[in-house]
Amino acid sequence: MYQLISSLAIRNDSKIVLIVMDGLGDIPGESTPLALAHTPNLDILAAQGITGLTDSVSPGITPGSGPSHLALFGYDPIEFEIGRGVLEALGIDMELKEEDLAARANFATISPSGEIIDRRAGRIPTSTCIELTQLLQKEIPSIDGVELIIRPGKEHRFCVVFRGEGLSDRIAETDPQKDGYKPKEPEPLVSEAERTSKIVKNFVNSVRKVLKEKKPANFALLRGFAKSPQIPSLGSLYGIRPAAIATYPMYRGIAKLLGMDVLKTGESVMDEFETLERNFREYDFFYFHVKGTDKAGEDGDCERKKKLIEEVDRAMTTLRELNPECVVVTADHSTPCKLKSHSWHPNPILIHSPYAGVDDVKRFTERDCARGGLGRIPATTVMGLMLANTLKLKKFGA
Amino acid sequence: MYQLISSLAIRNDSKIVLIVMDGLGDIPGESTPLALAHTPNLDILAAQGITGLTDSVSPGITPGSGPSHLALFGYDPIEFEIGRGVLEALGIDMELKEEDLAARANFATISPSGEIIDRRAGRIPTSTCIELTQLLQKEIPSIDGVELIIRPGKEHRFCVVFRGEGLSDRIAETDPQKDGYKPKEPEPLVSEAERTSKIVKNFVNSVRKVLKEKKPANFALLRGFAKSPQIPSLGSLYGIRPAAIATYPMYRGIAKLLGMDVLKTGESVMDEFETLERNFREYDFFYFHVKGTDKAGEDGDCERKKKLIEEVDRAMTTLRELNPECVVVTADHSTPCKLKSHSWHPNPILIHSPYAGVDDVKRFTERDCARGGLGRIPATTVMGLMLANTLKLKKFGA
Repeated sequence: MYQLISSLAIRNDSKIVLIVMDGLGDIPGESTPLALAHTPNLDILAAQGITGLTDSVSPGITPGSGPSHLALFGYDPIEFEIGRGVLEALGIDMELKEEDLAARANFATISPSGEIIDRRAGRIPTSTCIELTQLLQKEIPSIDGVELIIRPGKEHRFCVVFRGEGLSDRIAETDPQKDGYKPKEPEPLVSEAERTSKIVKNFVNSVRKVLKEKKPANFALLRGFAKSPQIPSLGSLYGIRPAAIATYPMYRGIAKLLGMDVLKTGESVMDEFETLERNFREYDFFYFHVKGTDKAGEDGDCERKKKLIEEVDRAMTTLRELNPECVVVTADHSTPCKLKSHSWHPNPILIHSPYAGVDDVKRFTERDCARGGLGRIPATTVMGLMLANTLKLKKFGA
Repeated sequence: MYQLISSLAIRNDSKIVLIVMDGLGDIPGESTPLALAHTPNLDILAAQGITGLTDSVSPGITPGSGPSHLALFGYDPIEFEIGRGVLEALGIDMELKEEDLAARANFATISPSGEIIDRRAGRIPTSTCIELTQLLQKEIPSIDGVELIIRPGKEHRFCVVFRGEGLSDRIAETDPQKDGYKPKEPEPLVSEAERTSKIVKNFVNSVRKVLKEKKPANFALLRGFAKSPQIPSLGSLYGIRPAAIATYPMYRGIAKLLGMDVLKTGESVMDEFETLERNFREYDFFYFHVKGTDKAGEDGDCERKKKLIEEVDRAMTTLRELNPECVVVTADHSTPCKLKSHSWHPNPILIHSPYAGVDDVKRFTERDCARGGLGRIPATTVMGLMLANTLKLKKFGA
C-alpha cells in the first residue's frame, strides 16, 4: 500500500491530525465505555464527517502495538516488523541507532549447578533492578568493540542494546521459558550471526560473574533479539512534515523509528492538546496518541475508560478551534474491558474534512460506526484517506 | 482476480448489462446530483436488488479512467496498465495494433538556437493542428521500415503511432515540461530500446525540418510513450460474447483493447439504449458507458449532472423491457462537482438479478448504497459477481 500512496504524494500546507485513542474499542454493544461516555465533541465530528470501522491486520486477528501502529501509517504490518527487543527498548525510552541490536532481559535466580530456580528472580523491586543494571553497565561497558547499553525496566525486567557494526538478530534466545531448566546458549541461527553469538555468550558469562553474589538476581535471561527495523520514513514516503505527541515512551519510540519529530509534552491529555496547539504551525501531520484508554481496558476498568474518553472529548475543544483540514479519530486496536487485553474487534474511525462527506451516523460508538459510510476498511488505507482528504494525493494512472 | 474467475467460467445464454455512469459518485451527503435526481427506474432496481460501494483501486486512491475501467472488468489495475500514449490515441479514435508504440505530442515553438519558447505553440487552433498533422503525415510516412500514423487532437495536441516490429516504449520523453529549456533527446532507457530511440530521434529531426517555417508551431514534443498493452480478452477469459456501447472514443478504445465488439451508436443516451435494444440478441454481455455525468462533474455543474442522471433513468425503461438476467449500475470512479476532477470516493453500485438478493436500500444514492447489502467491495470483484448472478461461474474447489 505505502509504495502506491507514496508514488502519488504531493505537498501542500493542509493539516492532518490523527488522534489514536489506544485500545479504544470494546466488544460492540450498548454499554461499551465509548457508548456510555458523554462525548459532544466527538459526536459533532462524527455527525459532520464520515465513519466506519478499520482492521489493523485482518478480521479476527488481534494485533500488538507494533503492527497496529505500522498499519495506521500505511505500512503492511506483515511485511514490516518491529521486533520485541526493539519495542521494549523504545518502551523504556532508549535511543536506538540504525545498526543496534536490542534484547529484552530478565533478572533470574539460578542454582549452583546452573538450573533456573526462578525466571523472574522473585520479582525484585524496581529499585534493585536499577542498582543491578547500573552495576552491569559499569562492569561490562563493551565486548570486543561492541558497546553495551543496559537500562532498567520495571521489577526484574531490563533491556540490553548491543551497539556496533555487523551484528545480527538471528541468534537463539537464552530464556527456556520454564523454571527447572538450564539457560540456553545464544547459538547463531545463521552463519552471519556467529560473531554476534560469541559476543552475547561472552556477555552472559560476564553477567553471571558480576551477579554471582546478588541472589535472588544472580543471573539474566535474554530474549526477543531484534535489530532496529529499516522502515522508510513517513516524511520521505508521503511528503509530509510529521510530528508525534505521545506520553508513553513506546509510542514516541515508534514515531521516531518512522521519522517523526517527537514533541516534548506533559503527562495529561490536556498537556498533549496544549502541545498540539503550540506546535500547530510547524507541521502538517500530527500523530496524537492517548494511552489511558488502553490501560483502563487492560485493567478491565470500564468506568475509568469511559472517563478517559470524556476527558479527551472535553480537551478536543482546543482541536476544533485549531480547525485542521482533516481530523481522524480512531484506535490502533481494541482493548475490551471484559478481555483485559488487546482484541481483534475492529476500530471505530471518523474522518472529518471538507471532502470526506457525511453519513447517517450521529454518535461515535462501535455500533454506530459499523453503519458508517466508510464501511469496514483495512487500517493500512487510512493514511491514503487522510492524504486524499487534504488533496495531498494525485490521480493514479491516466 | 481475473485468473480465478476465468478458471471457473462456464457459458450460458443469460444476459448481463453493465451500465457505467462515468464519474457518477459525489462527496457523500444529502445533496449530491444522484441524491437530488428523480430516478424512479434506478430506485426500483435498487429496491429489488442489492447495493453497495466499490473501490476501483483502494480506499483513498483516485483512479484514472484506464485503471478504473480495468478494475471493473476484473483486471488488477496495478498489474495491468494502459499507458498515456495509448489512452490518448484511443481517445482520438485511432486504431491500435498489437505491436504499436503510441506517443502524445504537442506542437511547440522553439527559438533559432533551439530553446523552447512555448510548449503549446500559443495553443494554435484545432484547424491548424489538422493541417500540420496532415503535412507531417505526408512528409514523414515512415522511418526505417516503421510506419507512422499522425493524427490531430484538440488545439496543439496530437498523437503519433509508430507501427513496426520490435519497438520499445522504454525511451525518454522529449518534453522537458518547462519553457526555456532545450527539448530532451529520446534516449533509450534500456538497451532493447536503442533502435526505437534512433527512429524517434530521426522523426524529431524530420519534424523540425518540415515545420521550420510554421512558427509558432515550428516543433513538436513527445511524451507518454506506451505500447498497446497485452491484456487477455474478456471473451477468452470469461467465455462471454461482449459488446461495448459508448459515445466517447477513449472508452470505445479501451473496450477494443479488451476484445469487445464496439457497436456503432449515436450521440445521446437514448441512442445508446436503442443500440442496446437493436443488438440485444447478439451478445450476452454489454458494457454500456455514459460519459456526460463525468463531464458535468469535471465542470462542477451539479444541475447538469443531475439532469443527465435523470435522462439515463428515463431511458432505462427500454432496459427494463428487455429484462436482462443481470443489470449492474455503477461508475468507474467518482467525479464530485466540488472537486471538478476524479476522486477517491467509492462508487455506488446496484446489482439486480434473480439471485442477487435484496437489502433495505430503496434509493440509488451514495449514502443509501453505503448501507447496502453488498458492503464495500473491490471493483475487481464486480465481474465475478455479474457472472455469478447469471450462473456463469462454477464452484471453486471440491
